[in-house]
Amino acid sequence: MALQNKKVSDAVIKRLPRYFRYLADLKENGVLRISSKALSEKMNLTASQIRQDLSCFGGFGQQGYGYNVESLYNEMKKILGVDRGFRTIIVGAGNLGQAIANHSKFEARGYFVKGIFDIDQSLIGTSINGVIIQHMDEIDNFCSRETIDVAILTVPREITAEIAEKIVKLGIKGIWNFSAMDLRLPEEVVVENVHLSDSIMVLGYKIINN
Amino acid sequence: MALQNKKVSDAVIKRLPRYFRYLADLKENGVLRISSKALSEKMNLTASQIRQDLSCFGGFGQQGYGYNVESLYNEMKKILGVDRGFRTIIVGAGNLGQAIANHSKFEARGYFVKGIFDIDQSLIGTSINGVIIQHMDEIDNFCSRETIDVAILTVPREITAEIAEKIVKLGIKGIWNFSAMDLRLPEEVVVENVHLSDSIMVLGYKIINN
Repeated sequence: MALQNKKVSDAVIKRLPRYFRYLADLKENGVLRISSKALSEKMNLTASQIRQDLSCFGGFGQQGYGYNVESLYNEMKKILGVDRGFRTIIVGAGNLGQAIANHSKFEARGYFVKGIFDIDQSLIGTSINGVIIQHMDEIDNFCSRETIDVAILTVPREITAEIAEKIVKLGIKGIWNFSAMDLRLPEEVVVENVHLSDSIMVLGYKIINN
Repeated sequence: MALQNKKVSDAVIKRLPRYFRYLADLKENGVLRISSKALSEKMNLTASQIRQDLSCFGGFGQQGYGYNVESLYNEMKKILGVDRGFRTIIVGAGNLGQAIANHSKFEARGYFVKGIFDIDQSLIGTSINGVIIQHMDEIDNFCSRETIDVAILTVPREITAEIAEKIVKLGIKGIWNFSAMDLRLPEEVVVENVHLSDSIMVLGYKIINN
């Protein structure tokens, strides 16, 4: 259907993967259509919120019919690039990098791990989920041969800024950053931070103040 | 100093760990005091934002002096419960559970892993970071002996709801949930979700639309 042409707010963007998840579940459970009211109850949103969110992308609902689950699911896949796919590398093959490389969920979302890089000699040459871990020195060659869309950074905090600069120079346009460091990069590079220790500290604050 | 007595907004709560991080860095670099302007430039916030955020907790700044780094850092530690500490268990000792158990950052933030549980016989009896992995059947006994504040759930999505219910029955008041499932639990239990695949999908959306 219609592609968005206005700026979509961050709050809406953050909800898109939730729509994708809930629609995937509905589809898997054989649900063919759902009213915005029923979807809103499931998702703990208001029906008007859902209508507003989806209107950013051209609507999709039909008065009195609700949403066709499969077609809305397919639209979400397009909007989120799931069917387009993202060629991905992981930089840092420690515990967290390995956990991500082993997690089949990311591939199901369109993120295909093409390369894994580290500097630990004991890891280099071993493989995770069929992908061989290469030395960081190989990353330039690798990226000149392969077009990479996303770099997942699971490196120590101290070297994150330096690695991120290298990633930018290699022409990679998206960084998923797991180090507890806020990166400031050129506008043409998108960074999504996962600050795990920030997240657990928010939990702690809420426990104390609940 | 003063403890907050009004409801602090989620946006402010989310920024607290960032304050903690930046102040820890400043302290480590020997900085004794900082103006709200200098801190705001570092943190990419406005100075008035910072003054407003900190006013929720009683202020701390002094006109013309700025903030005393060490005392503000210590206040943040108190506010976030870092010095109080949280007795923690990890349920699910797969790649992600292991990554978390091995990550020294969490202990430095006050989260002490006291027990790790799984059902995989090949893992049970082995230890991560000095903590022995026990069978899930032991969790009731364990939690009747030990007071646990936080359960980290890194279990498959299908069993997350069931495990979360068990956690609630064990009297644990905080859950850090890594499964891509939104939990609905009684109000006395705080849940902080880390939906990793949601996060990478947001990255993908932004790459496509950048």
